[in-house]
Amino acid sequence: MKDIKKIIYDGYEYIDGGVCAAKGFCANGLYSGIKENPSKKFDLCLVVSDELCNAAAVFTQNKVQAAPVTVSKAHLAATGGKAKAFILNSKNANACNTDGIEKSEKMCELAAQRLCVPAEQILIAQTGVIGQTMPIEPIEDNIDSLVYGLSYDGNEKAAIAIMTTDTVKKEVAVEFTLDGKICRVGGMGKGSGMICPNMATTLNVITTDCAVSSQMLKKALSDVVKVTYNCLYIDGDQSTNDTCAVMANGLAGNTIIDSENEDYKIFKQALYIVMSNITKMLAKDGEGATKLLECNVSGAKTEKDALAVAKSVIASDLFKCAMFGEDANVGRIACAIGYADAEFDITKFCVELSSSKGCIEFFREGAIVPFSEEKAAVMLSDDEIKINITLADGDAEATAWGCDLTYDYVKINGDYRT
Amino acid sequence: MKDIKKIIYDGYEYIDGGVCAAKGFCANGLYSGIKENPSKKFDLCLVVSDELCNAAAVFTQNKVQAAPVTVSKAHLAATGGKAKAFILNSKNANACNTDGIEKSEKMCELAAQRLCVPAEQILIAQTGVIGQTMPIEPIEDNIDSLVYGLSYDGNEKAAIAIMTTDTVKKEVAVEFTLDGKICRVGGMGKGSGMICPNMATTLNVITTDCAVSSQMLKKALSDVVKVTYNCLYIDGDQSTNDTCAVMANGLAGNTIIDSENEDYKIFKQALYIVMSNITKMLAKDGEGATKLLECNVSGAKTEKDALAVAKSVIASDLFKCAMFGEDANVGRIACAIGYADAEFDITKFCVELSSSKGCIEFFREGAIVPFSEEKAAVMLSDDEIKINITLADGDAEATAWGCDLTYDYVKINGDYRT
Repeated sequence: MKDIKKIIYDGYEYIDGGVCAAKGFCANGLYSGIKENPSKKFDLCLVVSDELCNAAAVFTQNKVQAAPVTVSKAHLAATGGKAKAFILNSKNANACNTDGIEKSEKMCELAAQRLCVPAEQILIAQTGVIGQTMPIEPIEDNIDSLVYGLSYDGNEKAAIAIMTTDTVKKEVAVEFTLDGKICRVGGMGKGSGMICPNMATTLNVITTDCAVSSQMLKKALSDVVKVTYNCLYIDGDQSTNDTCAVMANGLAGNTIIDSENEDYKIFKQALYIVMSNITKMLAKDGEGATKLLECNVSGAKTEKDALAVAKSVIASDLFKCAMFGEDANVGRIACAIGYADAEFDITKFCVELSSSKGCIEFFREGAIVPFSEEKAAVMLSDDEIKINITLADGDAEATAWGCDLTYDYVKINGDYRT
Repeated sequence: MKDIKKIIYDGYEYIDGGVCAAKGFCANGLYSGIKENPSKKFDLCLVVSDELCNAAAVFTQNKVQAAPVTVSKAHLAATGGKAKAFILNSKNANACNTDGIEKSEKMCELAAQRLCVPAEQILIAQTGVIGQTMPIEPIEDNIDSLVYGLSYDGNEKAAIAIMTTDTVKKEVAVEFTLDGKICRVGGMGKGSGMICPNMATTLNVITTDCAVSSQMLKKALSDVVKVTYNCLYIDGDQSTNDTCAVMANGLAGNTIIDSENEDYKIFKQALYIVMSNITKMLAKDGEGATKLLECNVSGAKTEKDALAVAKSVIASDLFKCAMFGEDANVGRIACAIGYADAEFDITKFCVELSSSKGCIEFFREGAIVPFSEEKAAVMLSDDEIKINITLADGDAEATAWGCDLTYDYVKINGDYRT
């Protein structure tokens, strides 16, 4: 996967518009009342393409799958990888309910009727409390408003509607040229808690006007998710609802990408830019987080080893607490390197931490290096900390992202339902 | 391993004395000044047997091993499983130091000289901050006082000296009859943070006056650790220093246990009683904990599956936070069951939670069961909560122990070194 990360971002420009940045995508979000909600925060949204899209998705690997996961998988299978629209709600995960499938199917049907397409062309994702009956009335009562309110700049409303404990909405879009045509890839995501590597992701919708076959979309999404969302660690809990779908309507007018040619590489790089940016936003806005942590591991024998070490460090509760406390208790990094499921020579690893306020070496050849506590405190007072590890034992590398563990994580999750 | 757990505790009596409960074991603990410590909390201790012991130990599986782990392994190998004494300190882990081995060896030599035995007969364990130079002067300055102060009721001083962020000392001892002779097994442990299943344990010393061969000691320890310390989860961090050693001096006068006979089973059960009690003490006193959590899984296809599910639930940060908040957010249990690395039918699992204040069923056949929030709040207000899960898919079972995740865990670990 090194090819993805090494390419310089030349030729790609960040633009506004999120899931509506690509030509022919409209969206809307509103408060439907899924859960009693005095602040009337948005809880329902719809993303629709003018044309039927090629589509691909990755889902949670949790054996306990929420109903929307089951339904979206079935719809993609039934259409052979096509989708017209994506409906999403927050506040209720519709997981572990005996009538879950029925409710998720009903939501798709309600949207499909208004859009005059078969229900199988609708994808669905839901997020919120697990094990609470999903009320269908709020959707029935608001589906008309939702559809009537669709607009080509409705991306922000949609991005807000999928937020749970997120404190900021998460949107990214890029523009680039392919085959002489202007193309766009945009996306939105929601995260916060219940996020673990080695699974699909949180809820994410990616839209593009590139013409790409379902098969190539699937391949690109699968490759990029491995080095973005799958390298994100908040708390080790794999959600029952994780879904990341990409919809391509082809309105940019480029020659359809149906093999791993040069155009495919350019498209995949755009997808990487969008998804890696959302990944960092998700990490920085992890539940209760005050700091974004990025762990770069190089010099590993294999990429698998590099990823294992990066994820082990980023997942250590003790290290995460030390970062919250801005305490250079770096022995915990060595400890987490040591219990990673990876092969390397423990007498060789080096560790440095850096931020915009400095860079300090802490371990050389497996042993601590004396350091200034004062300088370490200054360096750690930043809100983005990089942990750079070299195993000096090969040339493979990987990056994982996470956040500190704070009082607020405990507070939010000690009483999430109320 | 079911045989261990099913045996009723008939014939075993809890007694005082910890590591000094068994005949011929003396101990001492004192403040040596390893770290500047205004409260002068004890930081150094020694456990000595009148007679040379058969000994066995299990150690951390972390690839980054502290010097005392390397030294104790070498000593046990050199003596063929014999030990006269065990020296331990807190406040400094002596891990990741270039002169670590030298310092650990020096500590063993200092003790060995005073006890007039070869240094190889001394075991050593150290705990505290990783990556700080271990000062040898405090040991040199205090080794005479440590040895002169040894006594047959010094167990409490020793148990206090190994405490780090522990809030209470942890000691257990039992008495039983074997071969017509009164026998005793006693132990002490320290835990609190950096505790994860699938490794040896925290620092633990077990002493017995039973006559047991080194080989049988090793087998019993290895079997019992699997269903006790290895089922304990505080925060997922595997320490660099974990060590659990058992020393048997044979002074009870029983016929030596050198095969898996009836006497072996009786001894192993005593070991289980001591180690499972210490495990629960460690769980209840996990860093910042307010509640002991016990997860019992039954009806699994294999014990491996049962253990995987039990550990997955007990390790979920989100569930641990909900228990701290006394919030019946039980969907998180279903979520953690779902991502456990185990084989089972997800449409069959049932979950109930119980405490001394009630018992409530939350999931039946994979779906949520309506429950009273009021009754759930009362039940969860206890400080010991059992999570009983049946997978209804076999007859294997397992138990794991842990604690809630609290503000204090974050506070303690945000600034542990100061």
